[in-house]
Amino acid sequence: MTILHLDSSARAASHSRALSAEAVAGLQARFPDASVVYHDLSRESLPFVSEEWVAAAFSDPATHSEELKNAIALSNTLVDELLSADVLVAGVPMYNLGVPAAFKAWIDQIIRFGRTFAHNADGSTALVADKPTLFITARGGGGYGPGEARESFNFEDPYLKTVFAFIGINSTSFAHINNSSNDELLPASFEDARGIVTHFVDSVGSAS
Amino acid sequence: MTILHLDSSARAASHSRALSAEAVAGLQARFPDASVVYHDLSRESLPFVSEEWVAAAFSDPATHSEELKNAIALSNTLVDELLSADVLVAGVPMYNLGVPAAFKAWIDQIIRFGRTFAHNADGSTALVADKPTLFITARGGGGYGPGEARESFNFEDPYLKTVFAFIGINSTSFAHINNSSNDELLPASFEDARGIVTHFVDSVGSAS
Repeated sequence: MTILHLDSSARAASHSRALSAEAVAGLQARFPDASVVYHDLSRESLPFVSEEWVAAAFSDPATHSEELKNAIALSNTLVDELLSADVLVAGVPMYNLGVPAAFKAWIDQIIRFGRTFAHNADGSTALVADKPTLFITARGGGGYGPGEARESFNFEDPYLKTVFAFIGINSTSFAHINNSSNDELLPASFEDARGIVTHFVDSVGSAS
Repeated sequence: MTILHLDSSARAASHSRALSAEAVAGLQARFPDASVVYHDLSRESLPFVSEEWVAAAFSDPATHSEELKNAIALSNTLVDELLSADVLVAGVPMYNLGVPAAFKAWIDQIIRFGRTFAHNADGSTALVADKPTLFITARGGGGYGPGEARESFNFEDPYLKTVFAFIGINSTSFAHINNSSNDELLPASFEDARGIVTHFVDSVGSAS
């Protein structure tokens, strides 16, 4: 088993990091032979897609110059990691109503024509095998869920659900840590999120 | 008059760049004394928010070490530019159903507690004076509008509208270049978008 583990909080002592680490530790306890591929996206600062990246991503690799090969090499590695992973665990705090730019930089690298999606007569088709995927979000406030007061301000988990489904990953679970900046309300929300993490860990590889 | 002009396409020959340049040229023709502040966000690669950035953004500037001052200096400059601008024109192609990571990096730098928004009893309050703002999007396909087939895949202009309103910018216009990868359908959509750009340019500083 291979676990792809991503963090994207700017803060080392972040709630999303704490729970993503617990999720991976729980998976390793269940699957002692599991290997982990890890990226601290906030620290690694992936490059944005460039002119050469676009040229490489939409042309035949057999025709690529050294410059184009270099421009797309990191993306190829990140796509390979995603395709090879059996489980994905990602800590993704809400920054300004969406995913952090650091996480979007990863998304922009792994959505790849011909590698993670393709075109067909109906529009597009997904190329990534579905896999258990856990997103751990953290938000300063609360009320971002369906029917709640701030639902229309939430461009994070609906986005993640949609863009991952686009490439074939439909088995997405979400552990939301709400009220992360409210010492009174945070503990209960953190325990709720931890419960979802535990359930996710227990469900990986099970019949359910 | 000061115009803040942003581009975020990875491609030099991009449709969003072409129309954002036309918008700014049109404004300069109407207001010959206008000055322009420009950022090519795809090329400049703004840094992601960091541990030190967060520490600086949520503490009293009078207490900042040199390290914290440095961590927040670029953000302060970008916020100053936004606050000083009378008009904002931004080219923002849709990348993977949302804004490019390069543009989100700018958003993450300019949403600043105490500078572009503040907290109050009801939640938050916007601190940026409203200003005419034009977003020029470009999308490979079409049907992303309200009631259309791909509306639920659109996390770009609804996001921009919401996050800019959050800091006080409600006068947002959108010129959508659809079907940018379809040579047959593109020209009509480009002309529609150009019409919105022209209307925007004519409306700046007018009673309407």
